[in-house]
Amino acid sequence: MTQVFEKKGLTKKSENISEWYHDVVLRAELANYSEVKGSMIIRPYGYAIWEHVQKTLDEWFKEDGVQNAYFPLLIPMSYLQKEKDHLKGFSPELAIVTHAGGEELAEPYAIRPTSETIMYKTFSDWIQSYRDLPLKINQWANVVRWEKRTYPFLRTSEFLWQEGHTVHQTEAEAIEMTLKALKWYKKFYEEQFAISVYAGIKSESEKFAGAKTTYSIEMVIPDGKALQAATSHNLSDNFAKVFDIEFLNEEGKKEHPFQTSWGLSTRSIGGLILSHGDDSGLIVPPRVAPHQVVILIVGGDATVKDHAMKISHQLRQRGVRIAVDIDSEHSLGFRINNWELKGVPVRLEVGAKEIEQGTVKFVRRDTFEKGFIPLDELEAKIPELLEAIQNELFEKSKKNRDNLTINVDSLDLFKESLEKQRYFIRAPWCEDAECEAKIKEETKVSTRVLELERTEEAIDGACVGCGGPAKRRWLFAQGY
Amino acid sequence: MTQVFEKKGLTKKSENISEWYHDVVLRAELANYSEVKGSMIIRPYGYAIWEHVQKTLDEWFKEDGVQNAYFPLLIPMSYLQKEKDHLKGFSPELAIVTHAGGEELAEPYAIRPTSETIMYKTFSDWIQSYRDLPLKINQWANVVRWEKRTYPFLRTSEFLWQEGHTVHQTEAEAIEMTLKALKWYKKFYEEQFAISVYAGIKSESEKFAGAKTTYSIEMVIPDGKALQAATSHNLSDNFAKVFDIEFLNEEGKKEHPFQTSWGLSTRSIGGLILSHGDDSGLIVPPRVAPHQVVILIVGGDATVKDHAMKISHQLRQRGVRIAVDIDSEHSLGFRINNWELKGVPVRLEVGAKEIEQGTVKFVRRDTFEKGFIPLDELEAKIPELLEAIQNELFEKSKKNRDNLTINVDSLDLFKESLEKQRYFIRAPWCEDAECEAKIKEETKVSTRVLELERTEEAIDGACVGCGGPAKRRWLFAQGY
Repeated sequence: MTQVFEKKGLTKKSENISEWYHDVVLRAELANYSEVKGSMIIRPYGYAIWEHVQKTLDEWFKEDGVQNAYFPLLIPMSYLQKEKDHLKGFSPELAIVTHAGGEELAEPYAIRPTSETIMYKTFSDWIQSYRDLPLKINQWANVVRWEKRTYPFLRTSEFLWQEGHTVHQTEAEAIEMTLKALKWYKKFYEEQFAISVYAGIKSESEKFAGAKTTYSIEMVIPDGKALQAATSHNLSDNFAKVFDIEFLNEEGKKEHPFQTSWGLSTRSIGGLILSHGDDSGLIVPPRVAPHQVVILIVGGDATVKDHAMKISHQLRQRGVRIAVDIDSEHSLGFRINNWELKGVPVRLEVGAKEIEQGTVKFVRRDTFEKGFIPLDELEAKIPELLEAIQNELFEKSKKNRDNLTINVDSLDLFKESLEKQRYFIRAPWCEDAECEAKIKEETKVSTRVLELERTEEAIDGACVGCGGPAKRRWLFAQGY
Repeated sequence: MTQVFEKKGLTKKSENISEWYHDVVLRAELANYSEVKGSMIIRPYGYAIWEHVQKTLDEWFKEDGVQNAYFPLLIPMSYLQKEKDHLKGFSPELAIVTHAGGEELAEPYAIRPTSETIMYKTFSDWIQSYRDLPLKINQWANVVRWEKRTYPFLRTSEFLWQEGHTVHQTEAEAIEMTLKALKWYKKFYEEQFAISVYAGIKSESEKFAGAKTTYSIEMVIPDGKALQAATSHNLSDNFAKVFDIEFLNEEGKKEHPFQTSWGLSTRSIGGLILSHGDDSGLIVPPRVAPHQVVILIVGGDATVKDHAMKISHQLRQRGVRIAVDIDSEHSLGFRINNWELKGVPVRLEVGAKEIEQGTVKFVRRDTFEKGFIPLDELEAKIPELLEAIQNELFEKSKKNRDNLTINVDSLDLFKESLEKQRYFIRAPWCEDAECEAKIKEETKVSTRVLELERTEEAIDGACVGCGGPAKRRWLFAQGY
């Protein structure tokens, strides 16, 4: 097989997913490593995916009345010190500016690891009355959290994200907003990235530093690990009290409002790579693909090229994102492998033979299914094909998630499941932090979330950790 | 006049443009000051203008084949030290990270003041052969240049911008690209911001640290000062030599390529504010206005509100960006002043009287011209009105630019012109840096640009500075 021969050097995903990941990131030109510790360079092909993330989410946010704004990169250390839990959570990861403009600074600045403190200091000026609420602000920005072990996209010291921050009159409204953001993220992963995820509540020990409740999206990676893929926090009035945010209510009485924050980052692209790729490289779901279709010219004459350009123009008119490969220097096998590596959903091949027959050859990236489409059906068939690929990728992801998940009721079965490669374990737990730590120590597996649909589910039975009375059935897995 | 009464507190632009500027920035809710030295908070209304800048330029760049990417925020000091002029130019303005992750760093990082060094280090890996050229990369990012005296938008220690970086086989191509970027900026200011600008070449002493030639856009502010509003640099092969960027040409010989870089920042919004505002506040040109039309409900009944909503829906369908003001707590005068302050190009007023007459009252923000539009003509008239405002704002800006500009041939006339408030002076100059410094010392006025259309213009006559032979006629003005 040409494919195997030409792809010499690409680690097989099934054999070593971690090396495969590094190979794909570099060879599909998604990102480069940088000499700046823990930072990466996002190349145009990777950045185009991020631009799609931005465009999609930004539209949803704006429809809901969320407004974009921009706050300073540098945060005075004194701001971070105001909320003790928040500081404790982030201080090991801070990058500190001590000198600027040729002088030592009187007070050092931290590069923002997240913007709660700097934003909420200002919100206290913006908010006076109940008429100023709800306030819904979003920021697209870079943040820095110093990491010891880094992977491109998945864990980098600098990353790009959006951070939404809202302020509400009541805690009920804040909880509603927290859940709305969580649902945007779930919808985004399912409908755009074609990834089936779990959505739920984090345990007390895993929640955001300063939050009352943290909700998260957990991605099921084919190797059985979980990737925290977005979070949404109900901050209650914790920060409002610390940053003196107050509003006059309808009765003219001063109250502290309730807040939320929620974010999704370039980490999502790491999850995308891990979820759909195979031994031939990346597979990008059609809806987010920078190029949905690539047209390869087979044989170099001008008629073939003109023909390909005509097809490309036709499909572009239909809103299909197209690349045309007219490379005449490399072998066809090399060119095919390159586009497979990049994960373009549909490949079309056009040569003298196809022109004669009035057809175009197509190959699906996800299944390698091949066929010929009559020229006059192309405009109708391609969007259908893209839609089918999108749906089937999602179905496959869902099946994979379900296959990796199991319900168990004892620690022995818990351990046995891990051996049987059922890595996502739904088990009754007492919700005690010490017990949680013990389970992690024994199994290397930690709580991921209490799934939303199980928050009210009554169970009786023993905790898999300590044998005491269990409260609810939590999802456990090993984290990325 | 209600207007004057209600706007108590807003400094008059004609009396003190600097105080007026601060007032408008705060009261129109464009930005807030921050406690972070020299940084500002861009509020939603100001950020919406920046989003329009991004959308417009990004489209033009992409049509030309420029691709977006993202490079690290932090730059190792050793990179900056490679190009001596570049380092010298930026080192007084650097913010330095010395500690991260709880430890002192072995090598400190600078927060990017611009990304030439970190990008070009990587370009040397990306570029191997002439087939990799031209390489056209753009980045939307934040940068930090520590400033002693700051103004929101106009000069802030952190600002947002785009920086384009391209690599070409020949210097001719690089020059072509440099000029193309300059023309994008000129077109942007003229067609979108409705501001008439000068475009030309900077003098040797004013050029970008590391460039062979710097081109710039100079905005003519109504107070007679010049604002450098965008720059485009021909870097020649200066950086390519320093960062070992080489390519194999068609003959298989190694060569250094030629580079350009070009940028436009949030400073542009400062120029926009200064250019069109008046004693009533901001005036935003229709093409970039977050709200092009505001509909004010006069009198509070439900019929009027429904009617306003119907009109708003109609106009929105036509692509008009609309705000509807249904505030029933504040006086009509207060509400009108608020929208005038925010510079919304057209105000519509709808009350019971207008409904009865089948008309809508309109008021132009730029001229305060008032009138009534029959309901059935509204959909056609509003886009026409917006177009007329856009064009007239530009014509006014052009007239203002021309009125402030004069040609002189001696230093006495030069000084006399300044007294007569002709602040943009086109004068023959010998192009010597010492002479330039002397003129600046004597008049506080410095070279802005050699206008593009005058680069080839032969003149004979004496330099206004030293009396020696003049080379070309340069534009002088005081900078912001």
